[in-house]
Amino acid sequence: MQNIKLLIEYDGTCFSGWQRQNNGRTVQQEIEKVLAKIMKRPVKIHGAGRTDAGVHALGQVASFKENIPVPVDKIPFALNSILPEDISIIKASEVEEDFHARYSAKGKRYIYQIYNGPLRSPLQRNYSYFVSQPLDVNKMQESTQYFLGTHDFKGFMTARSSVQNTVRTLYKLDVYFDENLIKIEVEGNGFLYNMVRIIVGTLIKVGKGKISPKEIERIIASGIRENAGPTTPAQGLYLAEVFY
Amino acid sequence: MQNIKLLIEYDGTCFSGWQRQNNGRTVQQEIEKVLAKIMKRPVKIHGAGRTDAGVHALGQVASFKENIPVPVDKIPFALNSILPEDISIIKASEVEEDFHARYSAKGKRYIYQIYNGPLRSPLQRNYSYFVSQPLDVNKMQESTQYFLGTHDFKGFMTARSSVQNTVRTLYKLDVYFDENLIKIEVEGNGFLYNMVRIIVGTLIKVGKGKISPKEIERIIASGIRENAGPTTPAQGLYLAEVFY
Repeated sequence: MQNIKLLIEYDGTCFSGWQRQNNGRTVQQEIEKVLAKIMKRPVKIHGAGRTDAGVHALGQVASFKENIPVPVDKIPFALNSILPEDISIIKASEVEEDFHARYSAKGKRYIYQIYNGPLRSPLQRNYSYFVSQPLDVNKMQESTQYFLGTHDFKGFMTARSSVQNTVRTLYKLDVYFDENLIKIEVEGNGFLYNMVRIIVGTLIKVGKGKISPKEIERIIASGIRENAGPTTPAQGLYLAEVFY
Repeated sequence: MQNIKLLIEYDGTCFSGWQRQNNGRTVQQEIEKVLAKIMKRPVKIHGAGRTDAGVHALGQVASFKENIPVPVDKIPFALNSILPEDISIIKASEVEEDFHARYSAKGKRYIYQIYNGPLRSPLQRNYSYFVSQPLDVNKMQESTQYFLGTHDFKGFMTARSSVQNTVRTLYKLDVYFDENLIKIEVEGNGFLYNMVRIIVGTLIKVGKGKISPKEIERIIASGIRENAGPTTPAQGLYLAEVFY
């Protein structure tokens, strides 16, 4: 049996997220549907991370074990010819037997995009979060140092999450800007539910001058969700890369 | 009566173009509907150019004469609060009585975006034209010189067009690239119907090696539509700026 790793890009706008579910269109289901068509029986794939409704992916990873009747390097073309236009398999490769898209992952990189200007941008509406109040990018950049390293990120997680260990390590947190677009890039060994969107919500509070960069330290240490900023909307978030 | 000039951004994906029509949703109609709501009677606006279905605008211009019961600098906020999300008024100003968005225009700038890579990009599907065959950007850049200046662009126009004078002047034609995205920027005193999309189609023929840069001269001189390249799809085109 071959173990196949897929690299996947998708526009999350019209999806109820990655994960298979009974109601709503999901990325996992669309890919499984196409594989079932090719294999003529049900195929289950494992995704590296469960992106929420509206969240995009530049480099989601999925794996599955099958003997696909197509040369591995032709799999992207074979699947894309049947997949809907908002999903694209951008690479396929054969990997070791014990590789698992989720359990083998060593880390992830996310990008969050903010459109910061007085008036909304229609071309950006599904691809970034519109913030009309001017943001102080320098202060946001100054804040990033407090997030880096290993911390208990208990306060940066949506409460309904049942995870036990909430300690995570961030390797990278960068804030760039180019005209009205602010890009936040974050890399870490793992992320709690909504963690990136809560970090961004907290950075925006700094950018608006509601809290100082230095206060981030205390907010993280408190472990209290209410001390951090709000969860920013899904459409600004991109799963950019999964590390193995 | 005030003469109002609007600067407009829109995502053309879900529009049957700019111009008012009986079937299909258009940008002009959506804006006129909102103005009629505010003025409590029908209002007609004049657009600088009629973009086709799927074509986007970063800086479309429209003008109309009305005494709007809102300070001019607040018009964008007033209209945007009622307009659909794929349109945004990004500026409003009061202009001289004889200003007319279409007849006063001295030139326009368009951007055309190509996604050039072996596999399609879902995030780019409505915002660029996907070309899988590798394009030689250097050769495309070498071709631009032959388009610049004043020429009879008769062969770069969709045939059903009834325009008499087909002489136009191009001031600028630049080809940039950034990873898989190729951006073509073109400025001129006016454009025939589909002219930008046919110029791009011809540049792509050069990029694919089907014709040499030098042949552009002969193609323009021939004035024959069939000698030029195909009309590229609408979703890659952006009306970027109108000059007055």
